Amino acid sequence: MFFASDNSGPVPQPVLDALTEANSGYTFGYGAEPLMDEVRQRIRDLFETPDAAVHLVATGTAANSLALATMVNPFDTIFCTPCAHIQEDECNAPEFYTGGAKLTLVGESDRMTPETLKTAIESQGNRGVHGPQRGAVSITQVTEMGNVYTLDQLRALCDTAKGYGLPVHLDGARFANAMVSLGCSAADMTWKSGVDVAVFGGTKNGLMGVEAVVFFNPELAWEFELRRKRGGHLFSKHRYLSAQMAGYLRDDLWVDLATQANTNAAYLHAGMKAVADVEILNDVTANMIFFKAPRAMHRHLQGNGATYHVSGGSLDHGAPEEHLTGRLVCDWSLPPAEIDRFVSLLNTAKK
Amino acid sequence: MFFASDNSGPVPQPVLDALTEANSGYTFGYGAEPLMDEVRQRIRDLFETPDAAVHLVATGTAANSLALATMVNPFDTIFCTPCAHIQEDECNAPEFYTGGAKLTLVGESDRMTPETLKTAIESQGNRGVHGPQRGAVSITQVTEMGNVYTLDQLRALCDTAKGYGLPVHLDGARFANAMVSLGCSAADMTWKSGVDVAVFGGTKNGLMGVEAVVFFNPELAWEFELRRKRGGHLFSKHRYLSAQMAGYLRDDLWVDLATQANTNAAYLHAGMKAVADVEILNDVTANMIFFKAPRAMHRHLQGNGATYHVSGGSLDHGAPEEHLTGRLVCDWSLPPAEIDRFVSLLNTAKK
Amino acid sequence: MFFASDNSGPVPQPVLDALTEANSGYTFGYGAEPLMDEVRQRIRDLFETPDAAVHLVATGTAANSLALATMVNPFDTIFCTPCAHIQEDECNAPEFYTGGAKLTLVGESDRMTPETLKTAIESQGNRGVHGPQRGAVSITQVTEMGNVYTLDQLRALCDTAKGYGLPVHLDGARFANAMVSLGCSAADMTWKSGVDVAVFGGTKNGLMGVEAVVFFNPELAWEFELRRKRGGHLFSKHRYLSAQMAGYLRDDLWVDLATQANTNAAYLHAGMKAVADVEILNDVTANMIFFKAPRAMHRHLQGNGATYHVSGGSLDHGAPEEHLTGRLVCDWSLPPAEIDRFVSLLNTAKK
Amino acid sequence: MFFASDNSGPVPQPVLDALTEANSGYTFGYGAEPLMDEVRQRIRDLFETPDAAVHLVATGTAANSLALATMVNPFDTIFCTPCAHIQEDECNAPEFYTGGAKLTLVGESDRMTPETLKTAIESQGNRGVHGPQRGAVSITQVTEMGNVYTLDQLRALCDTAKGYGLPVHLDGARFANAMVSLGCSAADMTWKSGVDVAVFGGTKNGLMGVEAVVFFNPELAWEFELRRKRGGHLFSKHRYLSAQMAGYLRDDLWVDLATQANTNAAYLHAGMKAVADVEILNDVTANMIFFKAPRAMHRHLQGNGATYHVSGGSLDHGAPEEHLTGRLVCDWSLPPAEIDRFVSLLNTAKK
Repeated sequence: MFFASDNSGPVPQPVLDALTEANSGYTFGYGAEPLMDEVRQRIRDLFETPDAAVHLVATGTAANSLALATMVNPFDTIFCTPCAHIQEDECNAPEFYTGGAKLTLVGESDRMTPETLKTAIESQGNRGVHGPQRGAVSITQVTEMGNVYTLDQLRALCDTAKGYGLPVHLDGARFANAMVSLGCSAADMTWKSGVDVAVFGGTKNGLMGVEAVVFFNPELAWEFELRRKRGGHLFSKHRYLSAQMAGYLRDDLWVDLATQANTNAAYLHAGMKAVADVEILNDVTANMIFFKAPRAMHRHLQGNGATYHVSGGSLDHGAPEEHLTGRLVCDWSLPPAEIDRFVSLLNTAKK
Repeated sequence: MFFASDNSGPVPQPVLDALTEANSGYTFGYGAEPLMDEVRQRIRDLFETPDAAVHLVATGTAANSLALATMVNPFDTIFCTPCAHIQEDECNAPEFYTGGAKLTLVGESDRMTPETLKTAIESQGNRGVHGPQRGAVSITQVTEMGNVYTLDQLRALCDTAKGYGLPVHLDGARFANAMVSLGCSAADMTWKSGVDVAVFGGTKNGLMGVEAVVFFNPELAWEFELRRKRGGHLFSKHRYLSAQMAGYLRDDLWVDLATQANTNAAYLHAGMKAVADVEILNDVTANMIFFKAPRAMHRHLQGNGATYHVSGGSLDHGAPEEHLTGRLVCDWSLPPAEIDRFVSLLNTAKK
Repeated sequence: MFFASDNSGPVPQPVLDALTEANSGYTFGYGAEPLMDEVRQRIRDLFETPDAAVHLVATGTAANSLALATMVNPFDTIFCTPCAHIQEDECNAPEFYTGGAKLTLVGESDRMTPETLKTAIESQGNRGVHGPQRGAVSITQVTEMGNVYTLDQLRALCDTAKGYGLPVHLDGARFANAMVSLGCSAADMTWKSGVDVAVFGGTKNGLMGVEAVVFFNPELAWEFELRRKRGGHLFSKHRYLSAQMAGYLRDDLWVDLATQANTNAAYLHAGMKAVADVEILNDVTANMIFFKAPRAMHRHLQGNGATYHVSGGSLDHGAPEEHLTGRLVCDWSLPPAEIDRFVSLLNTAKK
Repeated sequence: MFFASDNSGPVPQPVLDALTEANSGYTFGYGAEPLMDEVRQRIRDLFETPDAAVHLVATGTAANSLALATMVNPFDTIFCTPCAHIQEDECNAPEFYTGGAKLTLVGESDRMTPETLKTAIESQGNRGVHGPQRGAVSITQVTEMGNVYTLDQLRALCDTAKGYGLPVHLDGARFANAMVSLGCSAADMTWKSGVDVAVFGGTKNGLMGVEAVVFFNPELAWEFELRRKRGGHLFSKHRYLSAQMAGYLRDDLWVDLATQANTNAAYLHAGMKAVADVEILNDVTANMIFFKAPRAMHRHLQGNGATYHVSGGSLDHGAPEEHLTGRLVCDWSLPPAEIDRFVSLLNTAKK
């Protein structure tokens, strides 16, 4: 019962097969291999953009930081939510890659609104040279709390950014889960909504470690390439990134994986929502569930083999009835039987 | 006949097998997986250091830059040769990761001597706060020109560095090729010679993209871990790095691969050295050959399917008899028949 | 009636005299001039620390950023209030000088409390390598809202920082005003309270542009010197910084200046507090007054020659009765007659 | 007999007077004071450029580094000579301000030629993303060895740079000395020759610490302003920089000062060149003399009160007849009698 993260499970067989298939003969590296041509074309087709620039890196932190560094100046500030991955979980990588840009936090939840975004933007960039300049807006889709912005919401945020002339970055570590949840196209969720640079994440949806950075304005991309090399993120044997991504894109494998992950979460959600003492905290339309439950219940679950993150207090110490927050992330590979076991434990615990 | 680089060939089957084997079940990532414990122990055993800190990254540029950033201050200078990878081929990554340290070039060839190193060190660090401070010495083994420092030479360089209190970094992108060439132990070629931090490269010797950074003084390693995360170089699904490195270390696969690559080069060398008009420029004891030959000969070779880098002038334009330099890199996987074909072309050409 | 800032007035005659006096003959520069020996000794005596390291720079932003860069790592976070000068008014200089450290905002006002500081510290440094590490605490005395921490409050904040092993930086741009307000010694307000590195500001208290950075632990100071040079903040003709600071320290000129500035503010305060519709927002014990008053009143004041910053809305547009916030900063040189005129205008306006 | 540097002498009276004159009343700072309008206009007139952007900083290192950071990307390289101030004497400030750009050394002397510059440029920027990109060319006039490029030489270097599309930075720490030496206009020596950004140095020619950075293309200047603030180099009491520069420009004081300094050097040179055993190493047309003389002669000079830098060996230890290099820098304020004394000592020594 491993719900700790969607970076904890195995890689689907077609991706391994693609690696094996790519593993013969000699080729130039650094993205000059023919497989990258296939990947580039597939992603352009997917995003309905004949000339988008597409580059691969191996981690989400690299994808976000390099994209943002290409979009902002060192004397700028980036607007993101207080729980954004770039703020909370990248050990100052955005500051490092941008050369010292600041992050200005928008609102108090995982979801920006045009109002909170506007307030944040207005709070900066009005002190001449004394404060940082307004740089870019970074939106995370699926949010870190498992919520999915609707297309209308996305568009409204991008419109707000555009009203100030600011470019928009999409942290799409769970791009596929969001897209499947919305039932929209990749183009809808990005440039048609106003996104300028999108991270099309593969790692949390089945790859070993590949993220595509898609520039809808290809003029920025050469700078990205230089920054990627300078950051040590250009692979010499790049074919092994390309192969993973090619396997991911072929036959819409990536859509199937995300559909499976979301379905797992919906199934888990269905089993949880009837349980007394359990409060679901987010809209479960992607692959994550945040829930509040008594400490005793968490202890029962984890004591019986469920693995997931708990926040809001110590699991071990404190009143049994105090409520703590659990985060459940459903991988594409999660066996339904494990979900059943988890729900069954929940039902046992509550008595 | 692909001699362009040792990052152009396939990955050996045991490494693919290790990936497949690692690809089941759930695990914590970021290096907390049991496979990394195996890797750490194997590398400690290999280096005969019970408490060395061992960390993996996916590229050589990351390994070098992160290691150096841990070793020097932003107001320091690093000593390396003019053709060092950190100087020539990392697009300012060392400057980026160190926060702006300078590189001071030692001598005029690919090999430092205690004298050239001493001269370079003496040229810096003597202007108080006005010039950069002396930071670290970075030695490349195998050098970028295919030469291998003897243990005595290595020790003399490290002694020179130590005489000034400077730590030594070893860029071991071709660590295995050098070690096999010298017939020494990993410990001999590193800490026993005076190296403080070694990059134990895997990518150029058969892996998809894994380098181990080994700190013989583990106190620096926590800073390295933070810098690695901040650089976006910590893999969430770290098991796929560990698996590759584990497969590489088991049954001394890595030694076999390097032995094969060096043997290929020796075989090629044997075939080349008798050819008139061909001048071998380096000591061929590892897996690279630099040679001078007339333009016409290079054109004959490349026109018949040999792929390798040529420098010193245009392949296409110029006098047929002018000598250009070719670089031949032998991969572990190179079929002897390809080498035979190459030598045969050389012999045809010269007539 | 210039209340816009304490960086808008002239320099006192003894400082000009000290410049003139220093302006003869030849001397080594870069701080090696005898005048700097005098400055160092005077500051050590003042702080009752025989071995503190003392260095001069010309701007407060340089003093703060260089000090902090010496105290924290690039992967750390600095704790400061949301209105701290380092957060609001230095255009990302702290991020630049530290190599990308983050600033974590403490509480919601200009004054930290041990509780808000503790909450902020606890919010960081608990995610392993994923989030930034806890770096340093930066306290501003006088605060940006004109308040002065008591010695007990300062000590409590330093104790909180020390409880986590964090060093404390004091942004003392208005050091003298605070010290005079508290009636304490320089030692009391710094190392005796737990401050590790203090900026002893001179620019806002009468100098053309000189700040002393005082390291109570001199071991950090060599790194500071290198960072100062690397930042372009080491003056070749350093004697002109030393001369200003020497003139400032001789005969306790600096105490007289701050006393005068604080007295001016108290006198202004006395005149303002009886005025209806005027609400004083801070404790006026140093040289700044923040007050709320109707827009019409602000317009009356500024229309008749009072110069000061207004926030909370447009001065020109909006309802006359709406309250806006004004900031009045009293320079040492402010003539009492100007203060009388201002108060008289206030009294006229209210009718 | 202080020949150690042109940053060791006093400031001329008119500059002190300008400071005193500026020291009354209240004014907005940060360059918004009326005195800066005067300075800007005077510099535009001087350079015959109605719309050049002009900004002041207090040190040459700041001027150079901030200008270069505005001109190049972090993944670029800057071309300069091996003895350039930005390479030798700024403790990695250019690397810091540019975010890690590299410096590529041109030729082996203090003077570039179109040929050595071309060779250096060709050595970079031809390895795709692997090496740094070609950034900017930085020319020092007067060179660090006291030589002055002719206008033809300057133009040829700029033409070479322009042939590669590279902008040109002029390190004009001794701008006035060069201009007076050439008898040309400020425009001739800058934009008319092809310079894009010039540092118009004042500190080495009589100011306490002010350098003007002049952008002939004003579009870059806003970024410069932000970088200046971010670097802590924007003075709040900016009037005291403006006042110095205004005093320097009024009545061509700056030309008089440089003329005096150059005349002093010429007079010294005249006295030296007849002395046996003394070899003059540079063209003495500005204010510096490099000379070779026996150790015994240097010891005689310094033992009798001459102060200047010696390189090439220890002053104290070694054979009396071994030749060491001395550097003599003539300040505008140097009394002729001191020069006479120095020459007389030289003549005594030789016997």
